[in-house]
Amino acid sequence: MIKTIESINGVVRMIDQTRLPTEKVFVDCTTIEEVGQAIQTMIIRGAPAIGVAAAMGVSLGADVITATNFDDFYRAMEQQCEQLGKSRPTAVNLAWAIKRMKQVAKDSRHLPIPELKSRLKEESLTILTEDIKINQAMGQHGQTLVENDNVILTHCNAGALATAGFGTALGVIRASVNAGKNIRVLANETRPFLQGARLTAWELKEDNIPVKLITDSMCGFFMRKKEVDLVVVGADRIAGNGDVANKIGTYMVAVLAKENNIPFYVAAPVSTLDLSLSSGDQIPIEERSAEEVVVINNKRMAPEGIEVAHPAFDITPNNLITAIITEEGIARPPFTDSLKAMAQKK
Amino acid sequence: MIKTIESINGVVRMIDQTRLPTEKVFVDCTTIEEVGQAIQTMIIRGAPAIGVAAAMGVSLGADVITATNFDDFYRAMEQQCEQLGKSRPTAVNLAWAIKRMKQVAKDSRHLPIPELKSRLKEESLTILTEDIKINQAMGQHGQTLVENDNVILTHCNAGALATAGFGTALGVIRASVNAGKNIRVLANETRPFLQGARLTAWELKEDNIPVKLITDSMCGFFMRKKEVDLVVVGADRIAGNGDVANKIGTYMVAVLAKENNIPFYVAAPVSTLDLSLSSGDQIPIEERSAEEVVVINNKRMAPEGIEVAHPAFDITPNNLITAIITEEGIARPPFTDSLKAMAQKK
Repeated sequence: MIKTIESINGVVRMIDQTRLPTEKVFVDCTTIEEVGQAIQTMIIRGAPAIGVAAAMGVSLGADVITATNFDDFYRAMEQQCEQLGKSRPTAVNLAWAIKRMKQVAKDSRHLPIPELKSRLKEESLTILTEDIKINQAMGQHGQTLVENDNVILTHCNAGALATAGFGTALGVIRASVNAGKNIRVLANETRPFLQGARLTAWELKEDNIPVKLITDSMCGFFMRKKEVDLVVVGADRIAGNGDVANKIGTYMVAVLAKENNIPFYVAAPVSTLDLSLSSGDQIPIEERSAEEVVVINNKRMAPEGIEVAHPAFDITPNNLITAIITEEGIARPPFTDSLKAMAQKK
Repeated sequence: MIKTIESINGVVRMIDQTRLPTEKVFVDCTTIEEVGQAIQTMIIRGAPAIGVAAAMGVSLGADVITATNFDDFYRAMEQQCEQLGKSRPTAVNLAWAIKRMKQVAKDSRHLPIPELKSRLKEESLTILTEDIKINQAMGQHGQTLVENDNVILTHCNAGALATAGFGTALGVIRASVNAGKNIRVLANETRPFLQGARLTAWELKEDNIPVKLITDSMCGFFMRKKEVDLVVVGADRIAGNGDVANKIGTYMVAVLAKENNIPFYVAAPVSTLDLSLSSGDQIPIEERSAEEVVVINNKRMAPEGIEVAHPAFDITPNNLITAIITEEGIARPPFTDSLKAMAQKK
């Protein structure tokens, strides 16, 4: 499996997810600005992967700060972080990683600046390795919800490519396979960015996990035919009450799952929880470019001048969610209590 | 407005709907086989338009039958029709048009063969002009369900391009606009064939009816935000109990409408009713090529060797349908009774 992101001799290398699966091209970022750009243009995407990239970006930024005392250093770092924090609004892991890096700087204020920079770099690498372990733990909890011969529907890509490795929703699938269960996956193509067709199908094929690709509009058809046993998706931000922001279309999948009495699970690390929000309605929804909807492979598919909407995420209300799988265990309703308990275990 | 289909000096001319809106190219069919091919490859599509094309195709076929007595003529006609009837399985209007043309032949068995051929041609033109009148009547009934300032969501293209003109679902929208109502349309792009992005957006723009294009996965988002007042879609076949076969994704829209207490209307001519079927589960669902899902604008979007499903239609069960709008009036539940009444008015 190709690495989603890694740090090589001061260079942050990412696989360009806008060009998979037809082209395997890597993008090297040497500045925090380049990392912000890579996040904004979705060269790297997926809430946990964005968190790792952000931490590595903060370290790249810190490396070029010329200040010789902590206060000046920290002021410069804060400015850089503010800019980076604007690259994408919905996934809270971006803010979470930046906050963690800033805290590390503050906790290490006594160190000489060069050592402080090393400490930040070390922390960014820790976030990467932690992320893989978190996903493996999440997978272990999640696979207890999966039975042999289950068909699992997923939306978007919450896989190795959305994380430092192993994946969240696809981590649950991988852990189920590793536990000896026979699993088949139904993957929504996930318009407009086609993360399902391009990334999930590719990842699962690489791991020899049987996958069938469908358009988003087909998932209800297969649910109604009783050909889906459960749904697992990732999350970009989870409010204190369990409302989940995730890729546009997730709400559609959840409503169809409820109509067909199919369990709907969300797999996400505790870093995706935003307990400062009491409801999903407070989560900012990114509106992306209309071009991403109407231009496919350099060809415009709709008439010129047509108005287009492009909310990149939606909110799935907590009443549609069976359980939220985290690295600390499985949270069930009422989520206001169970999610708080997960966060406190950290 | 460009004509969907017309007969010019013995040639059946259709606008090539696979190439709209970027290219306006016409296809001329001079044989029944070419018409069947045009239906199969979706140069012409939409249940009522398929019916009109089929009738014109039958007339083209009849023209070249060399038999000199009725029995031989009818046997040859039946063979041609059997082949044409296989071009697409789901829309019942194909079988309906063929049956009607065969009945006309039988009713005119006393005529000399050349006159019989003229009679068949005349009938095919009658079906075309009738279809437009039917859609206008449907629009009149349907527009009584629409209020000023409504936002109407539609899926696929049930417009002028899906009929001989005016449209079924879009006919209801056009009639509402003609009645002086201020209407805005939200159009699902309708993967994989993108009839919404390519055809509905184009048609409505040509008529200056405000339209916003979204991916199929976004419609739930806008319903939950209370930005949709009602849904109107077309149909390819309606069973006696009111179960509706329509473009894949229609079921998804209906479930989301129910969850959000939004009326869900189907607009279709009586010729789309198949009262011989007691339930939608008996309607054959066409499985089309996987290529139509994974290849977009000549570029493959998913890894080679991935399994792909492509059911082109789905069944929306009657309990999700608020009413069915026909040219004979508005049918409400229980549909077993109300649809029978509509058919008997004919």
